[in-house]
Amino acid sequence: MKITSVQTRLFNVPLDEVLVDAKHGDHHFFQLITTTVRLEDGSEGTGYTYTGGKGGTAIAAMIRDDLTPFLVGQDARDVEALYDAMQWHVHYVARGGIASFAISAVDIALWDLRGKSRGEPLWKMAGGASDRCRAYGGGIDLGFALPKLLDSLQVFLDRGLNGVKIKIGQPTLAEDIERIAAVRKMIGPDVAFAVDANYSMSVDQAIEAANAFKPFDLMWFEEPTIPDDYKGFGRIAEATGMPLAMGENLHTIHEFEYAVADAKLTYLQPDASNCGGVTGWLQVAALCHEHGISPCSHGMQELHVSLVAAQPDAGWIEMHSFPIERYTTRPVVIEDHMAVAPNTAGTGVVFDWDQLTPFEQK
Amino acid sequence: MKITSVQTRLFNVPLDEVLVDAKHGDHHFFQLITTTVRLEDGSEGTGYTYTGGKGGTAIAAMIRDDLTPFLVGQDARDVEALYDAMQWHVHYVARGGIASFAISAVDIALWDLRGKSRGEPLWKMAGGASDRCRAYGGGIDLGFALPKLLDSLQVFLDRGLNGVKIKIGQPTLAEDIERIAAVRKMIGPDVAFAVDANYSMSVDQAIEAANAFKPFDLMWFEEPTIPDDYKGFGRIAEATGMPLAMGENLHTIHEFEYAVADAKLTYLQPDASNCGGVTGWLQVAALCHEHGISPCSHGMQELHVSLVAAQPDAGWIEMHSFPIERYTTRPVVIEDHMAVAPNTAGTGVVFDWDQLTPFEQK
Ligand SMILES: [Mg+2]
Ligand SMILES: [Mg+2]
Repeated sequence: MKITSVQTRLFNVPLDEVLVDAKHGDHHFFQLITTTVRLEDGSEGTGYTYTGGKGGTAIAAMIRDDLTPFLVGQDARDVEALYDAMQWHVHYVARGGIASFAISAVDIALWDLRGKSRGEPLWKMAGGASDRCRAYGGGIDLGFALPKLLDSLQVFLDRGLNGVKIKIGQPTLAEDIERIAAVRKMIGPDVAFAVDANYSMSVDQAIEAANAFKPFDLMWFEEPTIPDDYKGFGRIAEATGMPLAMGENLHTIHEFEYAVADAKLTYLQPDASNCGGVTGWLQVAALCHEHGISPCSHGMQELHVSLVAAQPDAGWIEMHSFPIERYTTRPVVIEDHMAVAPNTAGTGVVFDWDQLTPFEQK
Repeated sequence: MKITSVQTRLFNVPLDEVLVDAKHGDHHFFQLITTTVRLEDGSEGTGYTYTGGKGGTAIAAMIRDDLTPFLVGQDARDVEALYDAMQWHVHYVARGGIASFAISAVDIALWDLRGKSRGEPLWKMAGGASDRCRAYGGGIDLGFALPKLLDSLQVFLDRGLNGVKIKIGQPTLAEDIERIAAVRKMIGPDVAFAVDANYSMSVDQAIEAANAFKPFDLMWFEEPTIPDDYKGFGRIAEATGMPLAMGENLHTIHEFEYAVADAKLTYLQPDASNCGGVTGWLQVAALCHEHGISPCSHGMQELHVSLVAAQPDAGWIEMHSFPIERYTTRPVVIEDHMAVAPNTAGTGVVFDWDQLTPFEQK
């Protein structure tokens, strides 16, 4: 079944308020890049990726100018072969970065088509262990004063989530500890609680911080230091026993292989929007199984709910603060604290184009 | 001295003939992306990057849409601080790939401005050890029948070069050996001779090949296997004693750090067009010094001649088969087998825009 066209659109979607983390500054909007692949029988699949506000036009340019001419005329059914072929097609300018985002969007569209042609939902195609998984609220809340921070976490709990994550990286460790203590006091002992430093610390600073965080029963300490320093992660884990997590900044299977070899992670958080789509995400999940690491996800919860739920050793999906789900026909459903995967054929992520069109960048 | 504008142009420059290597297929043209940075005093610096035909519009998009708005209004003089700031500015979609090419082009423009304002040529700013270095001819000649291959190498020798490199990765090892034997016979024992597999081999295949290549006194065996497999490179070097080289596919300082730690390289070949410009290239050269590895280069010889010549432990520049130098006012000068760096203030790479304009992509 041949590909006849690939349509790519870029949207700069405004956020309700400015969101801040330790390393990426202020976020006023996020970028959503959608790719709709059409086949000769008229069927369509849509994939997408997103960014924190930069790189969107480069991603769209690569899909339009490099991947689309390559894809048109190819058989859409052998998704894994097309995935490898796309990686080689742009290899010299790729192996991570923009190319990973571009290939991810196309790959997700191909899985949407695969599911529709098979009449299968993504959670079944991706492993089928379950149609539901744990979910935590991930705030981008470094800039929130403490009362507002606590209010924002209450919103997550009110939605039915029983896990939360906050950003850390305040000017002093004492301020981070004060916020962590206040959050644990508010949520009580039974709600899972993680922190995310967005690699704002050196290895030594992270060791000091991880030791100071021990009284607060954290589920994990995310990206304490730069994602490139796999062995540095390993030193933090060994020195403190703190469970560590990373993955949103790893883009190739090789980077994930270094991470599982050296970073002593408890959780891995691949993001299908930047690690190669569903194909790339499932490769990382297979690595997790081999190494006894629990697969989680970063961002775009409306898709990841299906991928994480499908794994026998499922971790948690992040309910991310870029609300892509709001622009789909089915925001993530929470039942009994669990996120429930869509049961429709394909990815189950269907955009509400009328809502998005005002934000389109031409 | 503030930046007032950044102008980016993309050219698809046709090649005289189709060039083939083991992994990137046929090259009919190369892409040249130029970036001209203007300051409030009217001074201008131009940088550039290039690709084998894909990624050009994505690179131009990132420079125009992500880097330019960030750069305008900044002080151009602290090049190293701007380099770091650009890396952080696009971090989430970067750390390699398109972002490395985009940042490289801007960084080279900033060094051009620095040289012009100081009245210094690049070879002096970059270390000043010498104004000349060794240079070999690098063919993209996998598709050439043997007589044509030998003719193409004669062109390099006629230009005054005393080193050559050919592509390998023919259907059988026997064919590669036949070509290597014929080349060594033609060039004689005194011309340096390297081979480049463009990672078309497994580690075991590369070990077999390296052992078979031993009678031919090769200077190095380049990219025998995928650049991501640093430890695989190390196994090839240990098993065979063959000098290994890589670098054109490493884009971040972290990737170079893994390479020097694990790949047991004799030569490192950073390319300033994709490893962060002059700033990134000099960081890699510093790594080379620390580890007793000889810094070489890949591609854009008209710029690299200044960078390699400036190093006390200089290796060789590649006279690459994408003839960017032909579109500048000073193609590389060869004297007594040595490539001579331009002695003009700035990078010394001045484009002949009239020649390029017909190939501009809008
Ligand atoms: Mg995070
Ligand atoms: Mg090469």
